[in-house]
Amino acid sequence: MTVKVLTIKEDILGMNKAKAGQNRERLHTHGILAVNVMSSPGSGKTSLILRTISGVKANSRIAVIEGDIASQVDADKVHEQGVPVIQINTGDRCHLDANMMEKAMDHLALGDIDLLLIENVGNLVCPAEFDLGEHRKVMILSAPEGDDKPYKYPLMFTEADVVLINKVDLLPYLDFDLTRFIQVVSGLNPKARILPISCKTGEGLEAWLSWLVSEMDDKKTVSK
Amino acid sequence: MTVKVLTIKEDILGMNKAKAGQNRERLHTHGILAVNVMSSPGSGKTSLILRTISGVKANSRIAVIEGDIASQVDADKVHEQGVPVIQINTGDRCHLDANMMEKAMDHLALGDIDLLLIENVGNLVCPAEFDLGEHRKVMILSAPEGDDKPYKYPLMFTEADVVLINKVDLLPYLDFDLTRFIQVVSGLNPKARILPISCKTGEGLEAWLSWLVSEMDDKKTVSK
Repeated sequence: MTVKVLTIKEDILGMNKAKAGQNRERLHTHGILAVNVMSSPGSGKTSLILRTISGVKANSRIAVIEGDIASQVDADKVHEQGVPVIQINTGDRCHLDANMMEKAMDHLALGDIDLLLIENVGNLVCPAEFDLGEHRKVMILSAPEGDDKPYKYPLMFTEADVVLINKVDLLPYLDFDLTRFIQVVSGLNPKARILPISCKTGEGLEAWLSWLVSEMDDKKTVSK
Repeated sequence: MTVKVLTIKEDILGMNKAKAGQNRERLHTHGILAVNVMSSPGSGKTSLILRTISGVKANSRIAVIEGDIASQVDADKVHEQGVPVIQINTGDRCHLDANMMEKAMDHLALGDIDLLLIENVGNLVCPAEFDLGEHRKVMILSAPEGDDKPYKYPLMFTEADVVLINKVDLLPYLDFDLTRFIQVVSGLNPKARILPISCKTGEGLEAWLSWLVSEMDDKKTVSK
């Protein structure tokens, strides 16, 4: 709440932005598409990543960076799919930053990767402020979280290139107004692609995968 | 990730702790029980507060502090119940702190309050680190978030006096192992009271309200 804290934060964000630019340049030289996946805890980031690996691994080389306060349960699940994965434990930090991203990239064979999926720490606030050097930001809202979240966490919704509404298989049991939610998000962020999905049933995942493949194709063309 | 950032954070936490102590002393002189309610976005903090107001307002004077990044939709819902409410908009801050709490208390008639409910910003990480001067910490996990959250956000689970498992009406449609979850939380935090509830159906709320009333009675006795 003091000016001092805000100044410190601006310095941190400025340094982070510069480092993120370096990361993006480094990814670009290898023709890698990097996607930053963000959401609240338990909205389905890991489930989406596992579904995405199954959907594109036949034609693309994937790597994953897993960000968590503690534990490596998500990294273990990705590792079981035979995909290179780096776990970052942030300790008391509630988001990934560009320095952490750089360190994780140092441990990956960048020449062998087409798609880098980054699972951010489960948090709808700070991850939206910290550029990692990714090319696209994807956020997931889980339907049980409620359709009022864009009002309360606006930055995340305005920053996202894609807004995925996960767990739509639960909609019959929830008071979630899908039409209203899509209208509100479109108002906040007209360029966002908004896709209802269920990582449990597979509903809607074709549209997500087809967007992702098209972004990878664009990246390859630009890098050549 | 640099030592500089960590040092700043330690200073912030130290200053916060001192201010929190002053807030607690001020609450104590008025015999107020202050409860800090924390969870991910959309786990049911506001629903719990509305249910709690209905459950205890006949015999207790309640006030509410609402913490949000933006908006006052939650404060409006509380206000409709005829309860004094102060909305704090934190801007880019992902948690409440003791300074914000002090400022909110300045706007409340402390002599007319028995129970102060504080709804923290929706976030399972930083709110657990910042003492506000409250007497009890309550965290809510919504069942759709999954039973693996204690591994990934351990501080929140170890700090809580009460862990509420909300939306248990959805358990038939989820892969949530309630027995395992309770075992894991008990292992991390043996003193925590763990209560399954549904703010939608009302299931389990009697146990929550009876805990709360008993804590208020203790507070009154101690303050006399």
